[in-house]
Amino acid sequence: MRNGIQGFLKNRIVDLSDPFFYIGGNDSMDTIQKLSHYGNMTNSSIRFMGVPKTIDNDLAETDHTPGYGSAAKFIATVMKEIIKDANVYDRQNMHIVEIMGRNAGWLTASSVLSKGEDCIGPDLIYLPEKTFDIDSFLATVDNLRKEKQSIVIAVSEGIKLKDGRYVCELISNQSQFKDSFGHAALGGTAQFLSNTITNAFGFKARAIELNILQRCSSHMVSRVDITEAFVAGGHAVEAAFRGETGKMIIFNRITNNPYQCTTAPFDINKIANIEKKVPLEWITENGTYVSPEFQSYARPLIQAELSPIMVDGLPSHLYT
Amino acid sequence: MRNGIQGFLKNRIVDLSDPFFYIGGNDSMDTIQKLSHYGNMTNSSIRFMGVPKTIDNDLAETDHTPGYGSAAKFIATVMKEIIKDANVYDRQNMHIVEIMGRNAGWLTASSVLSKGEDCIGPDLIYLPEKTFDIDSFLATVDNLRKEKQSIVIAVSEGIKLKDGRYVCELISNQSQFKDSFGHAALGGTAQFLSNTITNAFGFKARAIELNILQRCSSHMVSRVDITEAFVAGGHAVEAAFRGETGKMIIFNRITNNPYQCTTAPFDINKIANIEKKVPLEWITENGTYVSPEFQSYARPLIQAELSPIMVDGLPSHLYT
Repeated sequence: MRNGIQGFLKNRIVDLSDPFFYIGGNDSMDTIQKLSHYGNMTNSSIRFMGVPKTIDNDLAETDHTPGYGSAAKFIATVMKEIIKDANVYDRQNMHIVEIMGRNAGWLTASSVLSKGEDCIGPDLIYLPEKTFDIDSFLATVDNLRKEKQSIVIAVSEGIKLKDGRYVCELISNQSQFKDSFGHAALGGTAQFLSNTITNAFGFKARAIELNILQRCSSHMVSRVDITEAFVAGGHAVEAAFRGETGKMIIFNRITNNPYQCTTAPFDINKIANIEKKVPLEWITENGTYVSPEFQSYARPLIQAELSPIMVDGLPSHLYT
Repeated sequence: MRNGIQGFLKNRIVDLSDPFFYIGGNDSMDTIQKLSHYGNMTNSSIRFMGVPKTIDNDLAETDHTPGYGSAAKFIATVMKEIIKDANVYDRQNMHIVEIMGRNAGWLTASSVLSKGEDCIGPDLIYLPEKTFDIDSFLATVDNLRKEKQSIVIAVSEGIKLKDGRYVCELISNQSQFKDSFGHAALGGTAQFLSNTITNAFGFKARAIELNILQRCSSHMVSRVDITEAFVAGGHAVEAAFRGETGKMIIFNRITNNPYQCTTAPFDINKIANIEKKVPLEWITENGTYVSPEFQSYARPLIQAELSPIMVDGLPSHLYT
């Protein structure tokens, strides 16, 4: 719920026995934790329930979060298209695709799903979980240039240097704006790497920021993901009416194949303010790719479609 | 045919009575003109036929070009999604969406198709056909800021100042690379305007480059467009086998509603090296929007879908 609590309460009389649901990611779960603590202190009858929803997939204790599967599906789809496009040129070319993820590489990792019988997948994948070293990046790129006509690299916007600075902080004229939760806005990582490659090799790499398209492209969603979003919401309502409070609904995976997941309410105190990152064992030793385990984890989440209702040539949105 | 003639001929014995088809945009039609002149000079029996295919929609004499409808559909789709996304925030926000088009604004203009019952459409649309003035842009933006919570602006990468320079040339560290036809690579226009707004108002506008996604997003195509691409190709083959040469297939529109078009071979000399621009009467007097006539023209071209064949969660591509 991006409009925040003020927005929610603005035009509304709240019955103080109402359950209160907050749908979102880490910042929203921080809010649910604070509210449920306050509720406890004041013996409030309001039940505070968190409902997970973030493309970032970085909430603790849950196998994954609604939103992630659809964003991953969009990212893998356009990654396939970018790789296909890059392959039609005679001239050697390089594309650096910047994908969201401040400290967790879940979205960037999903670019690997493009790989299959009809697509070679990105050549390199850099996540924020591993320290990024510019010299070894340049050496890796230089080797690739000698082998391949067309090179596609996926990088997380949040890749960081050994000293802890984000790579995008190296951009000289980067203005540091903060979002409504006080996080510095990232961006420009791919452009910086492209400039670095040009300076090193005189070779032009094209920087592509997927930007907000990866979070708002409702025309390409995973039906598994959308279905699970409803399940999580439904379970939150059921749990709240049963009297639970200070919980978030989590997903527990039973098996990958066939994909099976259950949901359960879980103590918000063990979830709030913890960022779940991609396990290091799912990233290759040299930090330039992800493992087959990641693919087995992510592939079920992008399955099946929910085709938009098309009106006059475009997907119809329910309200303005 | 982006790989060029060399690529086409590389592994192939050419029967000199074969017809020769070149599928593409302005550069390709320039090639067909040259080849057909050479064919005439040498009394060659090869028939040289151009088949239009460019998202830029800037070929002369034809009502439109295959490729444009699908790119326009993708642009209008993501524009709706960007506008929707921008509208969920409490905080005032501004997005500047940079769309391809070096000298012709067809693609950028298609952003207006997002406008409808469920979407307000972009607030401003700037095409390269009209001179861009930074001061009046800032004044317009300043007025909008006083009225609207969420502002979305579509700009062509090719907008130009009164003195003829591209706006993106004002970027201090812009490196000037050329593509394989010797055209300077554009880009960074939205980022430049975003920085200009920040400097003027201390207000952060987010720059979004649709980048190559707008030309390669095969998961969101117009069925009208794909069908017409086959029709144009078929007509070129028919005409060549009938003995025509030095021609390109053009589309002639009969009516908008119902949409009806015919195809015909047309003298390449009247097409090659002419860029068809958006008519000035389809752009508002102040240069900040497009007219309903443009919408009537473009809307039929984005109709109907050709859903991709989905395999394991992603659109399948026919070959690697």
